[in-house]
Amino acid sequence: MENRITLKELAKLLNVSISTVSKALNDSPEISPQTQKRVKELAALNHYVPNMLAQNLKTRHTKTIGVIIPAILPHFFAEALHGIETKASELGYRIIICISNESLKKEAESVQTLIKGQVDGLIMSLSQETQAKMEIDHLQPLFSHKVPLVLFDRVLKQIQCDKIHINDSLQAEQATMALLNSGCKKIAYFSGISDTSVDDERKKGYLDAVKILGASRKVVNFDPKNFPDKKLLDLIENKKVDGILASDELGAILVMKSALNAGFRIPEDLSVIGFTNGQMSEHFRPSLSTVDQHAEEQGKLALETMVDRIEGKLPAEPIEYKLETSIIHRNSTRQKLYDLAD
Amino acid sequence: MENRITLKELAKLLNVSISTVSKALNDSPEISPQTQKRVKELAALNHYVPNMLAQNLKTRHTKTIGVIIPAILPHFFAEALHGIETKASELGYRIIICISNESLKKEAESVQTLIKGQVDGLIMSLSQETQAKMEIDHLQPLFSHKVPLVLFDRVLKQIQCDKIHINDSLQAEQATMALLNSGCKKIAYFSGISDTSVDDERKKGYLDAVKILGASRKVVNFDPKNFPDKKLLDLIENKKVDGILASDELGAILVMKSALNAGFRIPEDLSVIGFTNGQMSEHFRPSLSTVDQHAEEQGKLALETMVDRIEGKLPAEPIEYKLETSIIHRNSTRQKLYDLAD
Repeated sequence: MENRITLKELAKLLNVSISTVSKALNDSPEISPQTQKRVKELAALNHYVPNMLAQNLKTRHTKTIGVIIPAILPHFFAEALHGIETKASELGYRIIICISNESLKKEAESVQTLIKGQVDGLIMSLSQETQAKMEIDHLQPLFSHKVPLVLFDRVLKQIQCDKIHINDSLQAEQATMALLNSGCKKIAYFSGISDTSVDDERKKGYLDAVKILGASRKVVNFDPKNFPDKKLLDLIENKKVDGILASDELGAILVMKSALNAGFRIPEDLSVIGFTNGQMSEHFRPSLSTVDQHAEEQGKLALETMVDRIEGKLPAEPIEYKLETSIIHRNSTRQKLYDLAD
Repeated sequence: MENRITLKELAKLLNVSISTVSKALNDSPEISPQTQKRVKELAALNHYVPNMLAQNLKTRHTKTIGVIIPAILPHFFAEALHGIETKASELGYRIIICISNESLKKEAESVQTLIKGQVDGLIMSLSQETQAKMEIDHLQPLFSHKVPLVLFDRVLKQIQCDKIHINDSLQAEQATMALLNSGCKKIAYFSGISDTSVDDERKKGYLDAVKILGASRKVVNFDPKNFPDKKLLDLIENKKVDGILASDELGAILVMKSALNAGFRIPEDLSVIGFTNGQMSEHFRPSLSTVDQHAEEQGKLALETMVDRIEGKLPAEPIEYKLETSIIHRNSTRQKLYDLAD
């Protein structure tokens, strides 16, 4: 990278003071339009790039918000990012994004990279490792420098900051009840993401629901790379299961595919509900009933909260939004009992 | 954002020179281990963040690569980004990402943001608007500051830089021939992305193939939001089409869904080939035969090329990789003619 032209060099070339160059570039009314034009033309010609650190000392805000997400392939995060990006554009902010790849170390490095890049605030969804180790030391520089932090989806209780998330366990509980309500009597929880905190929450919600309703319980962990799963087919064949709550979208699709390929009918022999409302849920035949994670909405709300925080529109106390849960009923579940009773 | 502690302040607190603090933080052998420890402890305690611009003057490389992609929701870009991220981690580089949202203005702003953040190089896939207007002025600062640029997937001929892409028109030509080879006689091209440059290329490839083979031609543009498409069903019903090359993954899935829901069989009544090998292609019933876009591979190769360029391992002349095309044969197409002849 070559040395870039400085304010001083521009001033020398134009035979004016550094302060005049700086004011001209910042559209100061103190500088005549003619001089502004001369300065800007020469700056453009020399591809002058303002020193952001120096600029910050004056303007403070960079109108740039950093975003750290744990992964990019799951549809949920792509959609959340789309929500963040859309809302940022709308409100006149830029975003720069890092991916932690579920690693605490990469997350810590990303925090450092983004702070150095002088962001006005940081929106994060924590990595799996960060959540598992409950490690928060790497976020300390944010607090000491008073860089606002908004957490979404994957949050930790002990971090004092604005939070946007949904209640995973309550959602799983409601989805289990919806399966029971549609006539299922033997509901199992199938997980292909058994080492994550969202899975723990969803499993807890499922177990709470079957306990409350006095229904049988069965939790099956499977490897999404090793399908069709023999345990699954045995369970349906022997009528030990007639409803499945799957841990995530791909898990639900794999469950449906295995059952259909083995000749079972959905929803007549087996009802299925998944999580995350992605394209696969919408377009699979039959379409998949699913718990809506409100990914785009979470992203938009995280960005709005961040901008309100930056612009001083929020009380000092951190705020926490828990989004309303909802279940999208499609063709992988039967109608509700009270509908069928008509 | 509060003022951060500076090298000068650290030096004052420790009663040593600024140069000693700087050298200690950079593990200089000139400084005793004891002093290094003292300096680092105090720096950590005060959450010292090095001034990256100042640091650059010495080390030049930030080990950070900027990435600008046009959108995040299409599976192709999520997968390419995953490839870039994976390879960057492997080679000890960080990436920071901006999304241009298919807008030239946002792309130009992103270039500015990332240059200011002092990246070693920039990997880009151009926005639709940039390609349509063939506008490249906003990339000029990269060339004048000798910041390396690698373009992937969406490139422009007139930009002198390293490029990684695939030959969309050749791929479409081969996919059309594969449909003919499987026994289809009336092949149509269905597009739900008719205002993009990749669509132009794919359409061109389709038209070339039917021309070479003397087959009938039919190009249909449809609105993915308005499905099932009546034109499509009429065409199958009246036996005016028995094979479809769809412009993208979602388009192919929508075509299959409409045909199946209307009672037609795939591949017996209608064969379908799509583009982009996403999860939907793999898991739909029947699974979708598709042109592999090598998204992750393109991402990895873009990052590798960038690192080789940064580290001076490439000749001065820009290099261009065109990835080999391949078609993944699944259940939405019949076996090849020569297979059936057995």
